[in-house]
Amino acid sequence: MPGRILEESTFQHRQVPGPVSKTTVEKLNPVWDSRAVYFVVDYAKSHDSFLVDVDGNEFLDVYSQIASIPVGYNNARLIETAKSPEMVNALVNRPAVGNFPAQGWLAQLKDGLLRVAPKGHNKVFTAQSGSEANELAYKAAFMRYMRRQRGEGVEWSQQEIESCMNNSAPGSPDLAILSFKNSFHGRGFGSLSTTRSKAVHKLDIPAFNWPQAPFPALKYPLEENVEANKAEEEACLKKVEELIASWHCPVAAVIVEPIQSEGGDNHASPAFFQGLRDITKRHDIMLIADEVQTGFGATGRFWAHEHWQLSSPPDMVTFSKKAQTAGYFFGDDSLTPDKAYRQFNTWIGDPARVLMCNAVISEIIDRNLVEQTAKVGEKLYTELAELAKRFPDDIQNLRGKGQGTYIAFDTRNAATLVGAMRSLGVNIGTCGVRTVRLRPMLIFEEDQIPRLVQTLERALK
Amino acid sequence: MPGRILEESTFQHRQVPGPVSKTTVEKLNPVWDSRAVYFVVDYAKSHDSFLVDVDGNEFLDVYSQIASIPVGYNNARLIETAKSPEMVNALVNRPAVGNFPAQGWLAQLKDGLLRVAPKGHNKVFTAQSGSEANELAYKAAFMRYMRRQRGEGVEWSQQEIESCMNNSAPGSPDLAILSFKNSFHGRGFGSLSTTRSKAVHKLDIPAFNWPQAPFPALKYPLEENVEANKAEEEACLKKVEELIASWHCPVAAVIVEPIQSEGGDNHASPAFFQGLRDITKRHDIMLIADEVQTGFGATGRFWAHEHWQLSSPPDMVTFSKKAQTAGYFFGDDSLTPDKAYRQFNTWIGDPARVLMCNAVISEIIDRNLVEQTAKVGEKLYTELAELAKRFPDDIQNLRGKGQGTYIAFDTRNAATLVGAMRSLGVNIGTCGVRTVRLRPMLIFEEDQIPRLVQTLERALK
Repeated sequence: MPGRILEESTFQHRQVPGPVSKTTVEKLNPVWDSRAVYFVVDYAKSHDSFLVDVDGNEFLDVYSQIASIPVGYNNARLIETAKSPEMVNALVNRPAVGNFPAQGWLAQLKDGLLRVAPKGHNKVFTAQSGSEANELAYKAAFMRYMRRQRGEGVEWSQQEIESCMNNSAPGSPDLAILSFKNSFHGRGFGSLSTTRSKAVHKLDIPAFNWPQAPFPALKYPLEENVEANKAEEEACLKKVEELIASWHCPVAAVIVEPIQSEGGDNHASPAFFQGLRDITKRHDIMLIADEVQTGFGATGRFWAHEHWQLSSPPDMVTFSKKAQTAGYFFGDDSLTPDKAYRQFNTWIGDPARVLMCNAVISEIIDRNLVEQTAKVGEKLYTELAELAKRFPDDIQNLRGKGQGTYIAFDTRNAATLVGAMRSLGVNIGTCGVRTVRLRPMLIFEEDQIPRLVQTLERALK
Repeated sequence: MPGRILEESTFQHRQVPGPVSKTTVEKLNPVWDSRAVYFVVDYAKSHDSFLVDVDGNEFLDVYSQIASIPVGYNNARLIETAKSPEMVNALVNRPAVGNFPAQGWLAQLKDGLLRVAPKGHNKVFTAQSGSEANELAYKAAFMRYMRRQRGEGVEWSQQEIESCMNNSAPGSPDLAILSFKNSFHGRGFGSLSTTRSKAVHKLDIPAFNWPQAPFPALKYPLEENVEANKAEEEACLKKVEELIASWHCPVAAVIVEPIQSEGGDNHASPAFFQGLRDITKRHDIMLIADEVQTGFGATGRFWAHEHWQLSSPPDMVTFSKKAQTAGYFFGDDSLTPDKAYRQFNTWIGDPARVLMCNAVISEIIDRNLVEQTAKVGEKLYTELAELAKRFPDDIQNLRGKGQGTYIAFDTRNAATLVGAMRSLGVNIGTCGVRTVRLRPMLIFEEDQIPRLVQTLERALK
């Protein structure tokens, strides 16, 4: 029960990182940059929502490997899949999937990944990371744009063919992807050009001259700021439209996260996303929903963009993290390039990871974990709202109501707070500049709420 | 024995793709672009150097999943690794390695990958594809370049921090990577900007304005064209130097494949690469050896750049394909960024695939497969040179002598020839415009040479 008071021993103080973690990191650092390591994990001992480190400390994990563990450590169904003959086959005989797919590939996609294809989407392209998935989506958008310009069925000109080898127009055209301030879409040269969250990701790396629009900066609590927030969203949409119309080159696509995650858990209303859909339709350009962090159930819907209730779906939806593999879904045939080998690479994802993804999907479906997340999130939000009343300076702008467990708040010193939480046995993460983000797994249950909330209370004290 | 005449039944005609492959592709194509599929494979039945398709056809495979299968299908040691508790753990509990590495990660790197670190290299950064590995290397080169410009220990300026969020200089500086005509370095927006092999990869995709230098176009046979080839290589080196000096922005690194693979199996002499090392040293810029296709033994050395006998090693060496994972090795501390999180992502490779890589390395070492490849390659080259004398119009510019089994030749119609080979039971690949490339696995043995050579002879007839 949420109101239950936990035993004192639950909050035993841990030294994090412990001595074994420290020694391991000292040995690791000369061969592999270990400066971002929090602690070293004993994954064999970890279980469900609990992470166990090499010093024997156990943590309730509501960070979940940067929002990537979907159904718990050492999940029984995932173990079964990992031990299956299909998995051994996929690991040992890694195919160049595009040329020589395995017998089982059709089922892995059609009866597998496509079970969770967003509404209106019936095709998938597999990849290995969120960054790669987004760049593949950008390439699909650029190829589609130029196909429209060229005219359906019109062959590539000699000038186009020759100039692209030299990275020059018209073969390498000046086209852009529009993204939003504070967004995070990855770290490749294309995806990083759309990432706008922090200088540490971007500094010193050449970038494309692409536009960024302001993302709504909503005021909380929402119910007290309805008019101001509406005006803010309309101003942002107006700016999007202006940028598309005035940018020095055509904009082929708009990419947006349903909730800006790395950039600070920034939300916008369905009306904002409906406005984006209208604008992109009007300009006949692609709307890409980056669901790398929001996808796979954490918001109380399988895809966060389901909350938007659009008249027509986003043109591409990218995924990774909890999917344990990556890629993008789409439904429009014009996003399949005019020729083979244009959207291609040696591995086109990893069938071993697609097998894991399918086990995750089965687990989510069979255990109704999306519904569970919606329900548990509702209670968790209520508890946190209560706590926020008592600590108004330390829990500000609480957000994520109705968005499952995808909850966040601002605080005075996020790094100090999560450090204190960790030493009290809860592993939790930050985002943006001063935000604490909750990313429990989909198996997070109601009876774990007290430990999370009471630990937060202790840490704040 | 190479001279041995094979049974007539070996060359039984196969219908490729067979009816089951065709039906499968018809079902696949609506959900996943299948236009590049040659045939669908029964990997469970494939073994050693032999690929078995879903129609029951068996092929001697000298294409090896685009040069990616190292030690044979269903290799016993790889099966053992795939079934190990460590593997189940790595698959089921996929970590955000940079924040929460597993207990075994140190050993996977230090006693694992680093066993095969190139001379002078003692650090590694793991990735998931060759494209990603190259882009990570470019980012390391750019960060190092700007660190030198800024001065060691000098903090980032406010102007740099602010401008990079807007994709503008000075924070997003105009810096370049120099690559060579006909090179292939991947398909991300940065790596694709350095790829110069074919328009099908590049058309319609925005690219950075980076320089390409000519790669030596050697004349064969080498022993009859010594002076002309020497002049050609010197001219190319001169052009590299000119481009670095005159390009509109600073060049931070030069990337080169030891043998240009996708672009046509183009070779250059050690003198050329020594010249590149001298030039990059003189300008204090990075030399990146892209060993994605050449690495892991196929050239008769573990790394193809060992053939170059450089005075100091390349600054970074990227790998993927036969490694079954990806990443780059380096030895210079200034390639580790000045702050944590600058070279970072959620997964930083896949520990499951690193486990497979370590099994591959053990197999290569224990079975002396690099030495075997050198020896078998020598015999194979001799046989092909004999055949080339009898078919001078169909086997031109035979190359790869002394480079293990990394052998290629030009022919009149490469696609027709490999189609004929496939229908005769040998799976073989093309590259460039009219080149047939041999990419047998490292386990390819002397007694398989007759089947390859005699099938080629039949196909030519």
